[in-house]
Amino acid sequence: MSKQKKDARPSPRLPRGLRDIEAPELRQQQQMLTKIREVYERYGFEPLETPVFEYTDALGKFLPDQDRPNEGVFSLQDEDEQWMSLRYDLTAPLARYVAQHFQFLPKPYRRYAVGSVFRNEKPGPGRFRQFTQFDADTVGTESVAADAEMCMLAADTLEALGIKRGDYVIKVNNRKVLDGVLESIELGGDENAGRRLTVLRAIDKLDKFGSEGVRLLLGQGRKDESGDFTEGAGLTDNQAEYVLAVVLHEPGIQVVDGEGVRIERWNELMRNSASMKAGFDELNEIRGLVRSSGYGEDRIRIDPSVVRGLEYYTGPVFEAELTFEVKDEKGNPVRFGSVGGGGRYDDLVARFTGQKVPATGFSIGVSRLQAALAFLEKDAGSAADGPVIVTVMEKDRIPEYQKMVQALRTAGIRAELYLGNPKKFGKQLEYADKRNSPCVVIQGSDERENGLITLKDLVEGAKAAAAIKDHEEWKEQRPAQVSVKADDLVAEVKKIIARHAS
Amino acid sequence: MSKQKKDARPSPRLPRGLRDIEAPELRQQQQMLTKIREVYERYGFEPLETPVFEYTDALGKFLPDQDRPNEGVFSLQDEDEQWMSLRYDLTAPLARYVAQHFQFLPKPYRRYAVGSVFRNEKPGPGRFRQFTQFDADTVGTESVAADAEMCMLAADTLEALGIKRGDYVIKVNNRKVLDGVLESIELGGDENAGRRLTVLRAIDKLDKFGSEGVRLLLGQGRKDESGDFTEGAGLTDNQAEYVLAVVLHEPGIQVVDGEGVRIERWNELMRNSASMKAGFDELNEIRGLVRSSGYGEDRIRIDPSVVRGLEYYTGPVFEAELTFEVKDEKGNPVRFGSVGGGGRYDDLVARFTGQKVPATGFSIGVSRLQAALAFLEKDAGSAADGPVIVTVMEKDRIPEYQKMVQALRTAGIRAELYLGNPKKFGKQLEYADKRNSPCVVIQGSDERENGLITLKDLVEGAKAAAAIKDHEEWKEQRPAQVSVKADDLVAEVKKIIARHAS
Repeated sequence: MSKQKKDARPSPRLPRGLRDIEAPELRQQQQMLTKIREVYERYGFEPLETPVFEYTDALGKFLPDQDRPNEGVFSLQDEDEQWMSLRYDLTAPLARYVAQHFQFLPKPYRRYAVGSVFRNEKPGPGRFRQFTQFDADTVGTESVAADAEMCMLAADTLEALGIKRGDYVIKVNNRKVLDGVLESIELGGDENAGRRLTVLRAIDKLDKFGSEGVRLLLGQGRKDESGDFTEGAGLTDNQAEYVLAVVLHEPGIQVVDGEGVRIERWNELMRNSASMKAGFDELNEIRGLVRSSGYGEDRIRIDPSVVRGLEYYTGPVFEAELTFEVKDEKGNPVRFGSVGGGGRYDDLVARFTGQKVPATGFSIGVSRLQAALAFLEKDAGSAADGPVIVTVMEKDRIPEYQKMVQALRTAGIRAELYLGNPKKFGKQLEYADKRNSPCVVIQGSDERENGLITLKDLVEGAKAAAAIKDHEEWKEQRPAQVSVKADDLVAEVKKIIARHAS
Repeated sequence: MSKQKKDARPSPRLPRGLRDIEAPELRQQQQMLTKIREVYERYGFEPLETPVFEYTDALGKFLPDQDRPNEGVFSLQDEDEQWMSLRYDLTAPLARYVAQHFQFLPKPYRRYAVGSVFRNEKPGPGRFRQFTQFDADTVGTESVAADAEMCMLAADTLEALGIKRGDYVIKVNNRKVLDGVLESIELGGDENAGRRLTVLRAIDKLDKFGSEGVRLLLGQGRKDESGDFTEGAGLTDNQAEYVLAVVLHEPGIQVVDGEGVRIERWNELMRNSASMKAGFDELNEIRGLVRSSGYGEDRIRIDPSVVRGLEYYTGPVFEAELTFEVKDEKGNPVRFGSVGGGGRYDDLVARFTGQKVPATGFSIGVSRLQAALAFLEKDAGSAADGPVIVTVMEKDRIPEYQKMVQALRTAGIRAELYLGNPKKFGKQLEYADKRNSPCVVIQGSDERENGLITLKDLVEGAKAAAAIKDHEEWKEQRPAQVSVKADDLVAEVKKIIARHAS
């Protein structure tokens, strides 16, 4: 009941699940986004930027990765009391844009978009409430060639970012296959929504628990090593085997490992579900398209066990997975896992217009992919990529120091004047170190009278300092420090930077 | 009282004051941001990205361009009922970040940031509720050299964007000068806040109404051509002349146009106000710094009439103005005007820590600047920068068409397969036109059997079509259409693109 003091100072803090992104990560992200953009452009997609928030009813509630689609959104009210929400993905705003401008758009309409999206969810490690997505979508075509293209786009993007062939795979499945499975075991209808979810979640665990673990999760349940029990979907043994038979096998591939029984049943299954048949036909078509363009099974693979997005997908779904191993929190090796995905959603535009507009898209989780790249490049080291610092020895000569800075900048060199209090020279060097400077420029009265400047190479200096025994020796030798003509400032700084680069 | 039908379709629309940005504008913006970034980096600034929203109390209420600083923000509530707000500029989040991480930051801390900001204000033509700013700030230095550097940064940025010297000017003033003026005419104190604002608004109109118009606004008021009357600040003639004397003259410049009286009074004024004296001393220092770095009066100019930001500036203020003329809504020539600005704000971090952390910054209004660049480049024309379209003549050969697309992409050429319904070939050509394609690739059964493809140059085709009389002639000549070997696809498409480029 106590009132806060009216003039109390606010605490400088962020709401949970939000974060600042600092220079090294941001620079790397910038480079990454540029490369992704190049690939998307080459595929003929055009950029589009929509606002960060929109009317809540226009965005709808289609969180693709949400079990509870009606939660998870940040909302605010306009002055006329209409509700608006921060976008939770880039697909819902695209649907609104297409519905709004349909008659003027080229059809199919191909756009890419990059931007922040927002989820009002419980944050966790590496899981934020604001994050960046990079999407490509093709709207207005039923052609499975559009889905195949998304898979090729995903593969090309990962390779453009330096991820080696073999370190990733684009897995393709089809919602129609999973729908067919669920129908066939009589889990259709609203009343079975909960059990369907349990089955899909179980299938989603194949990578983690293997087929025997999933069999338990499909049946009565599974006890993990710590003794925790996860309730199963309660399928019969036959139903569970049926589900596993479908999701473990790529159709058209002859399994010759003695499990002939299963193969026979396979053909039978296919006959029993039109939906499953349609799904596999589309998958075969996608396979044909990507193979003829030179994408082998090492890059794009049909995998009926992929469960991606429970809400709005209606056909093919894709998952971009990194297959190299990292350590999990317990130190066990695990695959890095998903960095993006997508699929076909044929109903989003119809929400507005009633007219069915078939569409397919692919979305990259930018931070997750960046984490993967950082992992692969962990030996990159810290280059001296900071600015050259021109130090201040005589305070009344700042205009002349500033002129030196300007000369460096004009030559395209990152440079700045030390703008802090110049009294303690040591502070200026500390600052330069903290900024990762390649070198500092020094001109005191002695140098000035003789038309000279001193350049201190901070990279060489650090190496030399490590090799030198005591302060006296250091003072005598002044390692990595050269005295040059003031007129040669730019040329001499360039030499030092070139030396570091080589 | 009538309830809306539960299944009513939402209308695809945006809240007022929000907008979508489409490909041509977005591409130009991308190029522009890259160039600005290069200049900011060269000046030694480091990038930082903060979240789109933060705790309301952490952002504070410091809208720089707002007369009513406590309004204009979009707010939403977190699940724990704490209020959060969308950032209204990039400076308030910077202050929070610096206060939060002060001990670990290099000092001075120099950062740049680009991002969307949000104002819950009445939108108008060219005035949106979400827009982009590009800021540079130096935090933790009192040195006027930091302010001088902001002015040089502004000038270099505009030139890097292709704005010619003479087409822009960076105007510099000092809040201390205006504060001194207001004090001297006894308009200090909370009770005079309203009149102070009226005086500042009047000064801000100098460009528009000239000194005589401003004299009326400082006095009893001014009637415009339409007869509308604007109430004045109610200053006496002496007070008004005093204000005009200060804001119309750059100190140190001898005015020899016969207005000797005013010069004499000038020196008298300076003696009477310590604040004004301090302000002019700083302005002189800034002038010295920029002149010694080679920035003449044509680029950076001291101008005591600049009124920028009423709320948080405490020292030098800058305004980047484009000086070339455009037509206003009535067709009268007017200067393009401000595209950015900034100044010194010494109190923002103290809000959190109690510790005064002097800072200065410069902010570009990205859309406004982009509008200026679009105006300057209005002859740019529409290049055929769209993707090459590989058309579909035989539906069952899509994999082979897709392979052609892939070959083009691998060669770095923007290309795509026509993904719409291929039945009507005319639609495919219409699509290619709409996408600004340089050419389309065609392979029907005839061509296929002979190992050929047809390339249709859409740029040449449009020219030729314009010159041809009738359909018969067109059919015979098939202008701008060549038949080439299928194996030469990439080389031949490259030729066409090269021809367009030259």
